[in-house]
Amino acid sequence: ASKRSSLLTKCVRDVLEFAKEDSNRVVFALKVGLAMLLVSLLILIRGPFDFFGTNILWSILTVGVMFEYTVGTTLYRGFNRAIGTLVAGIFAIFVIGLTIVGGPRGEPYVIAISIFLVGAATSFVKQWPSFVTYEYGFRVTLFTFCLIVISTYRLENPIRTAVERLYSISIGAAVAVGVNVLVFPAWAGEQLHDELVDGFYSVAESLEECGKSYFSGEGLDQTGVQCKMANEFPADLAHWKCRAMLNSSARMDSLEIWAKWEPPHGRFRHYYHTWSEYVKVAAVLRHCAYEVMALYGCLRSEIQAPSDLRITFQKEILEAVVDAAELLRSLAGDISNMKHSPQLDRLKRVHVSGDRLQRSLDLQFHLLLISQNSGPCPADTVPLAQPRWSYHEAMRKQNRRLFSWPSRGVDELEDDRGEGGPRMRAAESSASLSLATFALLLVEFVARLDHLVEAVDELAATAKFKQETSLI
Amino acid sequence: ASKRSSLLTKCVRDVLEFAKEDSNRVVFALKVGLAMLLVSLLILIRGPFDFFGTNILWSILTVGVMFEYTVGTTLYRGFNRAIGTLVAGIFAIFVIGLTIVGGPRGEPYVIAISIFLVGAATSFVKQWPSFVTYEYGFRVTLFTFCLIVISTYRLENPIRTAVERLYSISIGAAVAVGVNVLVFPAWAGEQLHDELVDGFYSVAESLEECGKSYFSGEGLDQTGVQCKMANEFPADLAHWKCRAMLNSSARMDSLEIWAKWEPPHGRFRHYYHTWSEYVKVAAVLRHCAYEVMALYGCLRSEIQAPSDLRITFQKEILEAVVDAAELLRSLAGDISNMKHSPQLDRLKRVHVSGDRLQRSLDLQFHLLLISQNSGPCPADTVPLAQPRWSYHEAMRKQNRRLFSWPSRGVDELEDDRGEGGPRMRAAESSASLSLATFALLLVEFVARLDHLVEAVDELAATAKFKQETSLI
Repeated sequence: ASKRSSLLTKCVRDVLEFAKEDSNRVVFALKVGLAMLLVSLLILIRGPFDFFGTNILWSILTVGVMFEYTVGTTLYRGFNRAIGTLVAGIFAIFVIGLTIVGGPRGEPYVIAISIFLVGAATSFVKQWPSFVTYEYGFRVTLFTFCLIVISTYRLENPIRTAVERLYSISIGAAVAVGVNVLVFPAWAGEQLHDELVDGFYSVAESLEECGKSYFSGEGLDQTGVQCKMANEFPADLAHWKCRAMLNSSARMDSLEIWAKWEPPHGRFRHYYHTWSEYVKVAAVLRHCAYEVMALYGCLRSEIQAPSDLRITFQKEILEAVVDAAELLRSLAGDISNMKHSPQLDRLKRVHVSGDRLQRSLDLQFHLLLISQNSGPCPADTVPLAQPRWSYHEAMRKQNRRLFSWPSRGVDELEDDRGEGGPRMRAAESSASLSLATFALLLVEFVARLDHLVEAVDELAATAKFKQETSLI
Repeated sequence: ASKRSSLLTKCVRDVLEFAKEDSNRVVFALKVGLAMLLVSLLILIRGPFDFFGTNILWSILTVGVMFEYTVGTTLYRGFNRAIGTLVAGIFAIFVIGLTIVGGPRGEPYVIAISIFLVGAATSFVKQWPSFVTYEYGFRVTLFTFCLIVISTYRLENPIRTAVERLYSISIGAAVAVGVNVLVFPAWAGEQLHDELVDGFYSVAESLEECGKSYFSGEGLDQTGVQCKMANEFPADLAHWKCRAMLNSSARMDSLEIWAKWEPPHGRFRHYYHTWSEYVKVAAVLRHCAYEVMALYGCLRSEIQAPSDLRITFQKEILEAVVDAAELLRSLAGDISNMKHSPQLDRLKRVHVSGDRLQRSLDLQFHLLLISQNSGPCPADTVPLAQPRWSYHEAMRKQNRRLFSWPSRGVDELEDDRGEGGPRMRAAESSASLSLATFALLLVEFVARLDHLVEAVDELAATAKFKQETSLI
């Protein structure tokens, strides 16, 4: 019994935790309860029930089907429902006209054929790419049309029934929209806004994680222990977030559609065609995040630069990482606070550290390529004689290779394989090239930041963010 | 008038084109029409209508709401609807019991409170991560509960109404499922299967596109003309497909959920827990595709290796690309034909070409780093004297830098900037490092193929693909 009660306590604690994590969940639940209560009062209280009759039950169904988490989604569903019903009504009037022409004997045939045709037509058209988002509307059109046409055939008082139902559905829709908009509204636009800001933070965090892990030697301990997917690195929270960001495009597209249905409100009152800008910025951000994924790839590839080589560029790499992350955070802060501060200084600083990294990479790379032949040794004690030898050696091979291009080149090189020497050296050389790759991917990331800043500028202009002059 | 008729012709042609592109679209449309027709016959024909009464209209609503493109989706919605209705019925019986205890005066209050509580509870619970997929079921529970409770309060014959509606809904569900399963069924599992195979082909194609563009000089013409997003390269169809594959994770997850609802059928008759393996393989494939995106990044970055340097590795790079693409295509073919042929030979060949690339990269890199100082000239006429000089020069700078580490290093290097020389050289050196990055990303891609082959092996084992011994 105590075991069961402890399980219960755990459950309750989990639920409370879940509610506390995001209080909007509780608010949403209470809103649904409220909307349902309001609409059922119409029936529980004598007056409205006597007026509408049993058809008022349709208002309950409407609230149940229409009530969604955000204002935009509810309005979007409501719009689909309204237009769908309207179109269905027009079709139905047309078909009813036909049945009158056809006479009472032909009526069921006309109805059956029309139902088949409308069913096939709406289902075909809703697959058309530009209509896919209105799928729900086509569905409503179809079943409403069938209900109306069938009702006129079988019910005694079809017109009255149709009008009563229309009333009921309108009342249900009004209650759903009213409660959703007036009681602690949850806006899809707000969610899109927050998701974009979170995306910036995730990328910044992932970038810093990459930089830190590259020098903490974590990657090195696992050399050769590659992982199939990120699944096996549960510790890398930032990596997960970055992946989630990359996979969020479908969700953001839906949020954009819903946000467009929302009226201007609160801090988003200047927004009209702005939501598509959010999606564009997200696409550019995703474009940057692909480079971060490649950095993670470097971090976990089998070819790993030894840590004493890495250290040579530690300062430059970390500087670039920190500056880039700072720029990302500053952009995120700007979007979050809906202000537009000039990022030119920060961008310039990022570029300076990117350039510095690139330059020192270029100048030191001869040394790197050569030093590894002397085995892992601290960079500042590289003997100068040995590199010279391997340089000549490499040149000799190189020339041999060049003059036999292309027929024998590779094969001749492969002859060396048995000796053991070149093969080893090859692996070591790639190891330091992997460092160059890490650095160059970072440089490429920095280059893409230009486009990100540009996209944010465009967003700021479209959304009329508060202009802020530089404080520096 | 002729203008209008030509517009009409265009429309008709577009629609026919759309239908021809995927004949399943037409099949689906006709199926919906058929299901609707069947269910409306129940009402148009005297017999069943007299038996069920007006409540039979609910069967139309049910078909309209439940009919989905694939069998899995329809069954999944049907299951949600059935369980939702059942749970709602249990709740309702409980509440009706309470109203009897509470007496006639308390009845409306008990009902109102219960509606509020059930509304809030279902809406809260459906946000719990593991219940999110059953959102529709919770929705059905809520409005069915309200309909039943309200009906018992207001209608004369609540039990009969409830039973009739249940019948009607069951009939509607049976028609929807029957037509969907028996008439040219579209399987979500089949779609998942095809989508995975397509994913393999897209990655293979993108990889080849990268390889080809890297040597066709396309990238070079656009040096410096970076693009914000892929949007601006409409010609790269493969790139688009690869991106679409990367963004498809949400869709594949849904397909997996639906596919799990489908009974074993046709060539998928051995499938039970296999669909999650498909999603896993897709995740590993996406992991590979991130490297391809990084290759595209290289192709379009501002730092570009001159084409005469690129040509040095052309053979090795293209070999690796072709071998890797062949392996991908062969895996795709295996999955598509549901057979399992040993890929060891192909994998070995890919690794050999990967190794060869890596090795020749190592051996030639000295030359590359140095040759660029003599400006763009054919690789086979590199003067040997000049490289020597720049090598020493670089070493001198390098040493100076090393001994002043870390305090003055970078600043001193920056002093060189004014001279123009080193800065230029730096950029050129990165240019050839960018070639190394391209090659190493390719090597990393090759390394990840191991995991892909492994994942496909696992899939083959779980799904009991036909074993095929090597034909070679």
